[in-house]
Amino acid sequence: MAEAPLLQREMDRVRAEIDALFEELLAPPADPRARLYEAMRYAAIGGGKRLRPLLVVAACALFHADRSRALRVAAAVECIHVYSLIHDDLPSMDDDELRRGKPTVHRAFDEACAILAGDSLHALAFEILADEATHEDPFVRIELVAELARAAGPAGMAGGQMMDLNAAAAGLDLPGVTRLQQLKTGALIAFCLEAGAIMGRLPVEGRTRFRGYARDVGLAFQIADDLLDEEGSEARTGKRVGKDRDRGKETFVSLLGRDRARQQAELLVRQAIEYLDRYGAEADLLREIARFAVERDH
Amino acid sequence: MAEAPLLQREMDRVRAEIDALFEELLAPPADPRARLYEAMRYAAIGGGKRLRPLLVVAACALFHADRSRALRVAAAVECIHVYSLIHDDLPSMDDDELRRGKPTVHRAFDEACAILAGDSLHALAFEILADEATHEDPFVRIELVAELARAAGPAGMAGGQMMDLNAAAAGLDLPGVTRLQQLKTGALIAFCLEAGAIMGRLPVEGRTRFRGYARDVGLAFQIADDLLDEEGSEARTGKRVGKDRDRGKETFVSLLGRDRARQQAELLVRQAIEYLDRYGAEADLLREIARFAVERDH
Repeated sequence: MAEAPLLQREMDRVRAEIDALFEELLAPPADPRARLYEAMRYAAIGGGKRLRPLLVVAACALFHADRSRALRVAAAVECIHVYSLIHDDLPSMDDDELRRGKPTVHRAFDEACAILAGDSLHALAFEILADEATHEDPFVRIELVAELARAAGPAGMAGGQMMDLNAAAAGLDLPGVTRLQQLKTGALIAFCLEAGAIMGRLPVEGRTRFRGYARDVGLAFQIADDLLDEEGSEARTGKRVGKDRDRGKETFVSLLGRDRARQQAELLVRQAIEYLDRYGAEADLLREIARFAVERDH
Repeated sequence: MAEAPLLQREMDRVRAEIDALFEELLAPPADPRARLYEAMRYAAIGGGKRLRPLLVVAACALFHADRSRALRVAAAVECIHVYSLIHDDLPSMDDDELRRGKPTVHRAFDEACAILAGDSLHALAFEILADEATHEDPFVRIELVAELARAAGPAGMAGGQMMDLNAAAAGLDLPGVTRLQQLKTGALIAFCLEAGAIMGRLPVEGRTRFRGYARDVGLAFQIADDLLDEEGSEARTGKRVGKDRDRGKETFVSLLGRDRARQQAELLVRQAIEYLDRYGAEADLLREIARFAVERDH
């Protein structure tokens, strides 16, 4: 499916900018920790769609936050996302061999190194946010830290992964799968948008519709992921496909069927875009990201 | 060895206060994440010397910071310490079966649950610090976050653990072991003291001597740990002993011999106490903690 020029251009730009920032943040030291940094770099640099950084940058732009600062927040979110991928891929978790088209970190390095690389990226995320280069106002920085910690922890991503590990046994229904995904992937995606509002000092009472966009895009993205897991190719997605079905896990696709799942995702995208109707062309990138969530093939 | 009454009293008090705070922070939810919270509670509540929380509370008291706030910082540090123990004990890391006198988290639960419990405690530490209940001034909170993230990450604890994993192969000398321990355990201990200075708004230029205390106590504590690993009993330490020797790792004891290692630790403790000479009786608890670092049998 053709990506819109604006989206493609911004994706390429953010990808290059995030890689450059990670090159700077993850310069390997000349001591025995070099291998740890190599593992962090292997996982963090040069891969992925950078959907979350793109969302942060787009949301920050909408509220006129400085781009170089927005990129630091984007890198912090990506640190959390990448750490979660490293840990989720471990043998005792999802036991995956392939990620972003190359061997997972524990296979390219070793398990201990993978665990530590994840832990290090986790800490680095908060170090980045706390640095005054991210924003001169400590109120802004501490709000970012509070929201990211909540989104990443047991009330968010880590809690969702725990629910996911139990999912095959639990035999979840549609509300159960929805709740699981809202924690596992939705919380961090919601943070990306919230970060824009925080950086742009949007008052809390003005964030409701913006949060609606985040919630719907997050869910649409996950339904599309489930469809790709059924229909996609390993070559395009860069990871093993069909694995949820193999593990007997309920997904949006197993519960709704492909057609209804696709309709649901498209409905969510239309809804997400409606939440942006008070904005003009300055929200076009967010609109295109919403469409991309379901139109992508990877 | 008899513990001084002041130290014993404060240790017991902090232990009870930290347990009560964790009971509150880790109330299990009524959903499939309950098992994750159970694992976090299993690791965090009711065990350990609580040396780090005690250091935070003692340092905060010296600078007249409110005790209930100090306890929140203490709990954040303990979250980081406990997460590191959970991950370090994993089969692919140190592969330990016993911790604080009971089975390690991955043995009492399972490996995936242990990894996620560690990750969750890691995020929770920053959530605690970022909450305004920790301090009303966002400058104070963001400085705590910045310093803790640095102490926990690849430039601190996680980096030190990586060096430790390579230590058997690397054949470290005394400066190498010192550097490893300064990262692996020293950085977090130094944060405990620094947190007191931050909470008490001690200007950065006034912290030099205080940092000297932290560095020397941290190192003395580690040398004593190496001695206990050689001489201590599993029943008293609550963990396997003799493991560094079994793994062919150089320690302060293997490099210096027991007698010189003990002398070195005692010298460091005297030095640490000298750094406190501008303070009166209000620093007695910190003096007793320094002595305890080398006089303990667990």
